[in-house]
Formats: sequence, structure tokens, C-alpha cells
Amino acid sequence: MRFYSDNTATAAPEILAAIAEANQGHTIAYGDDPWTQRLDEVLGQFFGTEVRAFAVTTGTAANSLSLATLSPPWGAIYAHEEAHIGADECGAPQFFSGGAQLVSLLGANGKLTPEAIRAAVDKHPANVHTVQPTVVSLTQATELGTAYRPDEIAAISKLARERGLAVQMDGARFANAVAFLGCHPGDVTWRAGVDVLSFGATKNGALAAEAVVFFNLERVRDFEFRRKRAGHLISKSRFVAAQLLAYVESGVWQRNARRANTLAQQIGRAAGSTLMYPVEANEVFVRLGEPRKASLRAAGFGFYDWGPARSGEARFVASWDQREEDVAALCKALNESELA
Amino acid sequence: MRFYSDNTATAAPEILAAIAEANQGHTIAYGDDPWTQRLDEVLGQFFGTEVRAFAVTTGTAANSLSLATLSPPWGAIYAHEEAHIGADECGAPQFFSGGAQLVSLLGANGKLTPEAIRAAVDKHPANVHTVQPTVVSLTQATELGTAYRPDEIAAISKLARERGLAVQMDGARFANAVAFLGCHPGDVTWRAGVDVLSFGATKNGALAAEAVVFFNLERVRDFEFRRKRAGHLISKSRFVAAQLLAYVESGVWQRNARRANTLAQQIGRAAGSTLMYPVEANEVFVRLGEPRKASLRAAGFGFYDWGPARSGEARFVASWDQREEDVAALCKALNESELA
Amino acid sequence: MRFYSDNTATAAPEILAAIAEANQGHTIAYGDDPWTQRLDEVLGQFFGTEVRAFAVTTGTAANSLSLATLSPPWGAIYAHEEAHIGADECGAPQFFSGGAQLVSLLGANGKLTPEAIRAAVDKHPANVHTVQPTVVSLTQATELGTAYRPDEIAAISKLARERGLAVQMDGARFANAVAFLGCHPGDVTWRAGVDVLSFGATKNGALAAEAVVFFNLERVRDFEFRRKRAGHLISKSRFVAAQLLAYVESGVWQRNARRANTLAQQIGRAAGSTLMYPVEANEVFVRLGEPRKASLRAAGFGFYDWGPARSGEARFVASWDQREEDVAALCKALNESELA
Amino acid sequence: MRFYSDNTATAAPEILAAIAEANQGHTIAYGDDPWTQRLDEVLGQFFGTEVRAFAVTTGTAANSLSLATLSPPWGAIYAHEEAHIGADECGAPQFFSGGAQLVSLLGANGKLTPEAIRAAVDKHPANVHTVQPTVVSLTQATELGTAYRPDEIAAISKLARERGLAVQMDGARFANAVAFLGCHPGDVTWRAGVDVLSFGATKNGALAAEAVVFFNLERVRDFEFRRKRAGHLISKSRFVAAQLLAYVESGVWQRNARRANTLAQQIGRAAGSTLMYPVEANEVFVRLGEPRKASLRAAGFGFYDWGPARSGEARFVASWDQREEDVAALCKALNESELA
Repeated sequence: MRFYSDNTATAAPEILAAIAEANQGHTIAYGDDPWTQRLDEVLGQFFGTEVRAFAVTTGTAANSLSLATLSPPWGAIYAHEEAHIGADECGAPQFFSGGAQLVSLLGANGKLTPEAIRAAVDKHPANVHTVQPTVVSLTQATELGTAYRPDEIAAISKLARERGLAVQMDGARFANAVAFLGCHPGDVTWRAGVDVLSFGATKNGALAAEAVVFFNLERVRDFEFRRKRAGHLISKSRFVAAQLLAYVESGVWQRNARRANTLAQQIGRAAGSTLMYPVEANEVFVRLGEPRKASLRAAGFGFYDWGPARSGEARFVASWDQREEDVAALCKALNESELA
Repeated sequence: MRFYSDNTATAAPEILAAIAEANQGHTIAYGDDPWTQRLDEVLGQFFGTEVRAFAVTTGTAANSLSLATLSPPWGAIYAHEEAHIGADECGAPQFFSGGAQLVSLLGANGKLTPEAIRAAVDKHPANVHTVQPTVVSLTQATELGTAYRPDEIAAISKLARERGLAVQMDGARFANAVAFLGCHPGDVTWRAGVDVLSFGATKNGALAAEAVVFFNLERVRDFEFRRKRAGHLISKSRFVAAQLLAYVESGVWQRNARRANTLAQQIGRAAGSTLMYPVEANEVFVRLGEPRKASLRAAGFGFYDWGPARSGEARFVASWDQREEDVAALCKALNESELA
Repeated sequence: MRFYSDNTATAAPEILAAIAEANQGHTIAYGDDPWTQRLDEVLGQFFGTEVRAFAVTTGTAANSLSLATLSPPWGAIYAHEEAHIGADECGAPQFFSGGAQLVSLLGANGKLTPEAIRAAVDKHPANVHTVQPTVVSLTQATELGTAYRPDEIAAISKLARERGLAVQMDGARFANAVAFLGCHPGDVTWRAGVDVLSFGATKNGALAAEAVVFFNLERVRDFEFRRKRAGHLISKSRFVAAQLLAYVESGVWQRNARRANTLAQQIGRAAGSTLMYPVEANEVFVRLGEPRKASLRAAGFGFYDWGPARSGEARFVASWDQREEDVAALCKALNESELA
Repeated sequence: MRFYSDNTATAAPEILAAIAEANQGHTIAYGDDPWTQRLDEVLGQFFGTEVRAFAVTTGTAANSLSLATLSPPWGAIYAHEEAHIGADECGAPQFFSGGAQLVSLLGANGKLTPEAIRAAVDKHPANVHTVQPTVVSLTQATELGTAYRPDEIAAISKLARERGLAVQMDGARFANAVAFLGCHPGDVTWRAGVDVLSFGATKNGALAAEAVVFFNLERVRDFEFRRKRAGHLISKSRFVAAQLLAYVESGVWQRNARRANTLAQQIGRAAGSTLMYPVEANEVFVRLGEPRKASLRAAGFGFYDWGPARSGEARFVASWDQREEDVAALCKALNESELA
């Protein structure tokens, strides 16, 4: 009964079917295939605006390539201290950008605020002695399983515009956030001022597929050179594009996100007073104490520790394909544990 | 009738079947899955020696990650002027290595020689004023469709050892070379002194899978940090590993390479006096002249120009899944063209 | 009456004399001159232990070259949030290191503590997903004009050793700290566990000269390749080495530092209750309020704002060659201002 | 009797005098001093056009900072195979540019030709698979002691413009070339289409001073961030600027270059039939054979080997301060040797 992460999940049958369907006949490689060439149109319709979309196979690549495109080597990238780009990518943004400086900010529930960003940007005046403010990076859903509301994003983007910063969004769990908010995908991206989105599909049912989606078309610039040079232009590109097309066109994105969210809600309710943050996506953070974590593990539940060592915190992730009986068992165990 | 490149080809059914078979149940991500954990053993058996093997999704990533692992930023990497790493990867080795210098060498039939390497290395003495010799990069099969013989590789490796250089091999078409030579995979790698191989599967029937295979285990060093940091550690890693396992264990590697080679031999024979290099893998280079190229294209044959503009040179690549009737038609057209 | 920074000061006559004296006859360039070749010995005697010392012309180069030598691109470098390497060098450490991650830590009076470092290092466990702890960077004297005591440094170094980190010291104002502490230069460096020191001379009387001093000789590794490749190996190297030799051998380092410290003490006493930090080097930080800052400026005193905009904070730096009457005038003005 | 290189020479008295003169009173650091602020005007008058000029302390920094400003990381920089940037700077251009690819070209007498450049540029078509042509780098005087004529440079610049390339000039020995040609400094720079010049002073009488001179002001872009970030913004910048101002305003540049050239001409004539290239600056290349080299060394002459090992080639450099009797002795020895 594994609740480690949604990347332990399988790929959805629609995704495998799309790959099989794309596997017919010769087609030009490196993006000049019919599948890749439909990406802009299909994702444009999905988001409700003109976009330029590029397929890659990892979220780290999606984030780092877009950040490097937005920021020169002497840029400052502002992100929450929990952000994947700072905490879990082994310095990838610095590698791709040629050494941009990540600035870690605090904020409740995993969210940045305009105030925190403003204070940080003020420390980097316009002279050659400091790194220069270039990008705000948001994570939607956040690393703590919460979702930015459209107006929260818009307020950040407004500040970003005033200070000359681009807004990048790490959307590894974007579908979960949109499913929770019940909004249009455009409402938490371009309509709220986001310039570029890492639109994740892998965690939510794809094999290995993420789209870098530019809403601000002027920002695309040299993205394609960066992607090729980083080894992220897949030769048989049809197979990545086909996953993304199926993800959006079949409705897999929404079906899978809704199911995972629902299961996470159940777990969150079972967690009761141990719940640390509102459950607004498919992740549940609980402060159980080390003994209860140990007994859950002894009972067969797999999950990651969270927070500082011996803090008693834990993270449970509900994947799109999580078995209902496993979730029910976990809820039961958490309930008993809560009552004990 | 497309003869552009073997990356226009489909994936082999065995590969898709292996992906589907791996798509069951939850498994830990980022390489801690049973498929990835079998790679060392299975590839070790394939090559006949202990290896450390790492899965990635592109040849550019495989080459650049291994070169960056072998060479500091001030290293000199010696390669043939036709080598993919210098001509077709948008400077990826420089990006991954932090700016190592590629040194282009000449050599008949796309092959390096100990003499050419020695002369180049001599230009980089051991002081801080010049880049320092670190790696010889060979391509097997070469970019001109020929195959290094075991003793040719051994002679280069001997020099490399004497001068303190590592030997890296770009094996995007490694299976084609081994199939042509009829040798054991170890004969043109570790037995001949190769330290690291980019073992390509994509062009020869995989979806997107290449293995970086270290024969010299001391050279692995920080490879895994480099891979993660470059966004090339696939989260659902089982799906890349499963391709590589099937590629080797099912015999797809050999069956596909033999078929492609055989078809290329047919095309080479049809090319007659226009043939530029021996056909020892699945690529055929011909000097047809621009008018004959134009008429072949008018007749429906797709292929890339080669060499300088208006040189009349062309490249035909036989893919593993090339239709026999298409090859027959091409041979006929080349024959007629030859006779005309 | 300029109290902006000690880099607005002149060079000491002994330094210019040493340059003139070195300007005789031909001598081999790029460090193979008699002046440069004496650096190890002379600085070794100064510090009381065997060292390897390398001359460069800026503090940014000294810090960044040593950090890049100590840390791979995926390393984490821990420093105080006020540290010059993070706040004032436009991302130089990231550039030189190929993208290492700077981690900003808080600490009273500009000083790091073992506790703050331990908590930060704990966030970077030994796996490929996060940057890896590699260096603690201390500034002596600190950016807030205080000086680490030998036991404070030793406690940090002890933790660093336990966790596998190197200890680098930014000593742009090293002489001021030693002059204040009245200790031996070795007491706050190698005897306290420091691996590498950026030993600054420029601010304290040189023209343009800093020495990177390795106490831990195993750490030197590829420093010389990095220096050359960064354009920091001066061709007529005798002129930089001669400055460093004169700085140490003539006693300029101590005389100048003592004088600047004494003047700063005077200013600090005059500042009275507005003083923000103990004056332990040649910098004085005061919270004057914006009106008093304005009137001081109107009276002809030049100095930089400090802290957040409109915080009313200011920094006064006493240079080695500051005129006594200017300091007296400043003290008088601060006193009156204090009393007003 | 040292003929190793002109960087073994002393600094001219006018340069030291200028430094001493600048060493009075406090002045703002990091380029906001009166000396630095005169650079644009004084060098603009020298070159006869509006320029932006930036002082650094090494030629490697000057070249690499300008190349990095002109070329993205995926750019191709075309230079002669003898060029300092490729042969003697330990890969600095790759480091500063984030991995641009140096392309080595052949050409008689150390000079590039439009034909060689055109053929090389043709190998890098406008797609993501190859590095993109961005800069032609010329060396004036060349590494073989010859000087490009204005029309030779103009022809290269014309091609560069047509192909979208910038033209950078490594002018470590620029004064020697201009003195030989008897032309205006503008004739071999902006009037001939050069965008940026590394205007060297160190080899010709300065202590450590080079100016990066932009004739194409739009190309300046982010140069200042790059310089700071690389540790090449000198804090007491007045002392570097003062050298450059004195170099130009006092006529030292011309006096020293003429003298060195004249001495080299004498050596060249003495070399007779062993002379390898026309002597058009202050370097003399001779093919003496190993025995004659050995006897010259035994007679007390210091010089570097040149060319491949045991080729019998040697380089003699006449510095601005070379003693006449030493040159006379060398000429005599070469003559005898020639006659022997």
C-alpha cells in the first residue's frame, strides 16, 4: 500500500494506446512529426489562448529550461523554500541558467506572497554588484498540497510586472489544482499573468511527458536551442507528443486528477487534527509523531517522512490509480491512530 | 519511401510489449524500481563483464553526460570532424562539461587514427595555458557508416592510456556495427579499452532509450548527480529500463540491426560507382550529382543531402522496419540512374 | 569627507615602492618570477604553517576561485545572508563553480553559528535529489564590522569536519579582524580549522592584490587551471606578488589596520546609542534616521545607506588613510546629532 | 638576454608615474572614479569615433568577456588555429560564454580569409542541431607576427555582416600592428568593420591593463554584469584606467611599439633564410634546427620553442625595453649561425 508519491503510479491506458497508435509508419524526427505539430493548437484550445508548447520528458527539464530561457546567468529567481526547483532538483536551474541565484522565500501553506517577493526584490537593486531580479517561480498545486487561487496568482503577477519579473509556474500537479479549484485552466495561468507553465502529465497518468507552455510568446526566444543542447529534444518525438495530446484530448487529465484529489480528501478527513495543511490537491501532510508513523509502516503502509528529522511529520500522496481498498485501509488506520 | 534517418522508424513490438508489461502496480520512482535495478546485471551479461549502466532517453544526453563525467571544464575532447557530438548536438558536450574544448580531427572513412590523436594531444602540453587532454570519443558505427575493427579501437585505446585519456564511444548505431563485424559486444568495447559506451537503442527499435555503460567502474564518479541535475533522471524510470532490458534480452538488438544492415548492403551494391564509403552498417553515402538526386526525389524517395552545398552527395539510411519493396524500388532507381 | 568604503582609499607608499622596485629587468611571466615564487614561503611564515598561496587582483576572484575549487557544481555553500559572496558579487560563486547553490543563513552580528549551519545541512541529505553540502564560507571581519573569535571559528570548523564540509574564509578585511583580536593570524585560520583564506590587501593599502591562501594543501587541486581559465593569472605577475610581499613584510597590513580600527572606534563611540553592532574592525553601522542622515550629507559627509529603504540606517567605513580631521569632524557631527 | 615574450618586460616609467599621480585622495571605487570616466572620451579620440571602453587587467579577460557578450552558449566562434583564445587561454572563451564552440581555421601567415570562414560557417546551418555562427575573432598583430591590412579586415567583416556574425579583434599587440602599418588606429578597427577590440597595453609597457573597446555600441549589452560576475571589475579602478589613459595620451603606445618593431626587424634580417614569416610586428619566427637552437641557448639567449616537438622552430620576441646590445648580440649569433 504505497503512498510515497504519484510518480510511483502506472501510466493510464489511454496514454499507452496513444503511443501504440502513433507507432505506425515513418515520420520525421526531432519534432517535425504530425503529433508534435499539433501541440500548439491542442494546448492552445485547452488553455483558451494562443500558446507555444514544447514537449520534454521530465519536470526538472521543463522547469529548468523555462527558467534558463527567462533569466540570464546573473538573474535572481524567487521561489518558496519548499519549491521543487530549489529543494529537489539538485541545482538544475543553476545548471541550465549558467548560475542564476535561487532566492528562497517563506510563506504560509507553501505559497508565496507579493509582500515576501517585494522585500526580496528590494535587496537586489539595479547595479552590477548584485544578481538582478528576473523570475518569480510559483508551484501549482504547491509542494504542501494547497492550490493558489486565481486572485492570489494575479496579485503576484501584478507585482512581478511592476518590477520587471517574469512569472513561471511549476505545474507538476497542475491538473490536481485545476480540478480542485473547478476553474478553467486559463484562470490560473495566462489570465492571472503567468508567462510560462511546466504542464506536468507524468505524475497524473503519462509515461514520461511534460509540456513547457509559453503564454507570453515573446518569451520563447532561444528555448529550442537550449532544449536541444541539453539533450531534451527527443528524436522519436511523436511518442512524447502523443502522450500529451491524449492526456488533454481524452480527458485523462481531469478524470485522474479528480480521482486522486477525492482519495486525498478522504485521507485528509481521516487524519483529523493531525492534518497540517488544507487538502487541495492529492497530497496529505500530517503530524503523527514517530510512534504512530512506525506502527503505520508496520501495518504495511509506505510513505515518506517529511520535515526535520524526528519531527513526526509524514506525507501521503494519493495517485490517480490508487486502489480504493488501500485508501480505505489507510483512513481506517489513521482514524484509529487519531482516536488512540 | 523515407530513407532520411533511422530515427524516423517505429518502435519494435517487443519494446511496446515490455512497456505495457512494466505498467503494473506501484513501484518506487527515480531508478529504485526492479527494472532499473536489473540493468547492471543484464547489460553486464550482454557485454561479458561487470558494468554500471544508466538509462537516459536521448543519445545527446548519453554522450554529454559521459563526456562531462570524464572531462573537467578545461579538458580537450578529441573526436572526428564528422562526430555527432561536434556536428549535431548544438554544443551539448560543452554545456554539460562546463566548457570543455572539442578538437576536430580528420580521418579516412570517418575513423580516428592514433597518429591524428597523438599530433593533436601534443599541442596541449601539461600546463595551465592550454586545455588538457582528457577524452578520445569514437563513434561506432561511424558517422560515415563504417565500423571500427577491434584492433583499430585497441590501438587508439593504447595511445589513450599512454597519454592519460579516457576512451568514450558514441554507440548510437552500436548494434549495427556489432552485427556487421560478427563479433562479441565486448570485443569492440571493454576488451579493446573503451571506458564508457553510449549504447543506443532508440534508432534500432526502442521508443526512447539509451544506456550509458561504464566498463571502467572507477570512472562513474559523479555521473548520477550530473544526470539528475540535467533533468535526465526519469521519474517513472521503469519504462526506460524496460525498453533496454527487452532490447537486449529479446534479441531485438541483433535482429533489427541485421535487417537494416542487409538492406543497406543492397542499396550500396545498387549505388555502384557512386558509393563513397564501404557499407558496414545501415547507412549508405553516394555521390550522385544534383540532377540525379532531384530525379530520385521526384520519384518519391526521401533522403538528406550530405556534404557541402551542391556537392551532389546524399545519405540513405536503412531503418530496421524499412519496407522491402521500398528498398527494392530504391535499388532499381539507383541502378537505372547508375546506368543512365 | 568620504566614509563610503575602504576601497576608495589610496595605496600605501610601501606598496607603490615595491612595485617600482620589482620593475627592473626581464623576468618570466605568469607566475614564474622570483616575487611570485616567494609567496608560499613569506605567507607561510606570516601564518605560521606551510601554505600554498596564489595572487589575484580582486576579492571576488579570490572568493569565487576558492569556492569553485572546493565545491562541485551541485554543491551547497552556506554563508551568512550579509556575506559579500551572496550579496555583492553578482553571482560570481555560481559562475565560477558552474552553478553551486548559495544557502543564506541568519545569525546575530553578521556571524554564522554551528546551529544554523547544522539545520541547513540537514536539509540536504546524501542523495541525487538535492544539492550536496560542500562549503561553509565565513567572513572575517564580518560584513557588519564584527570579528569572529578563534573559538567561534573552531566550533564552526568542528561541525564542518563532522559533516564533510570545507571551511573557506572571505578575508577582505582580515587584517582589521586580526588587529582587533590581537591574535596571531594563524589563530583565526588554520589553527581554527580554516581550509582556505581570501587574504585581502586591496582595501587595506594595496593597489589591487589578494592572495588565495590554502592551509589545507590537498584542497588546492585544480585551482591553477581555474585561475588561468578565468583570466585571473596576471601576465606580469611580479607586480601583484610584490604588493603582497610588501604588505606582509613591511608591516603595512598591521599598521594600516590598526589605524583604521582606531578611527572606527572613535566614530563608534561618537555614535552612542545609534550604534547597531560592536565596532571590531573598521566599519561602523548606525541607525540615525533619515533626517539626521540628510543633515550629515548636507554637512559634507559621504557614506552609504544600509539596510532596507528608509530604515534610517547608515554605514561609515574608516579607511587606513582617512584624515584625522575628517574623523574628528564626523565624530563631532554624530555627537551633536546624538544629543539633538 | 631574454627574448621569451613581451610580457617579461618592465612597465614604462610613464605608466608608473600615472599610477602614482592617481594615488591621491579618496575616490569612489568600481569605476565611478574620474580616471575611468575619461576612458570613453580618450579612447574615442584615439580611435576617431564614439566608443564604450572597459578596463580589465588581462588579455584573457578582455577576449573572453567580449566573446561571451557577443555569443550565446550555443554560438560558434571562428578563429585561426594559432589564435591565443584557442591555444593559450585554457578554454577561457568557453568558460565565460557558457560553452560556445571554438572553430579552428587554417590560413597562411596566421591570417583568416573570407573563404575559410565562409566554408566553416556553411557547416552550421540555422537549425537547433548545430552551434550557430556568431563571431569571427581576428588577432592583430597575428600570432605569427604579421599584420592584417585594412582591406583584409574589411573583406572579412563584409562576409561577417552578410552572415550575421560579429567581428572581435584580439589586440594584445595592436599597437605593434598599427605602428607597422603606419595607419590610423581606426583604419584596422571600426572603419574596417570591427565591432569590439581587446586593446592590449600590458605587453607594450603597462603594468596590467587592457581595454575592451566597443565600436558597435549596441553590442555592449550585458558586458558590465559579465565583468563584475567574473571578478574583473577592479575595486580601485582608477589605477587600471590611469594606465590606459597614460598609454594613449603620452604616446607610449607608439613609441614602445615602434622600438620593439624595429628591433624585431633587425632580428628578422639577421635570421636570413631561416625566417618563417614576414616580420610585421615584434615577433620573429625562425626555423633554425635543434642544434643551432641549442648553441644559441648555450650562448645565453632565452627564447621559446615553436611548432611541433623537434621541428627546429623558435620564436624570438622583441620587447619595448629590450636592450640594444642584447639584440645586436642575437643578430650576430643568428648571422653566424646562418653562415655556418
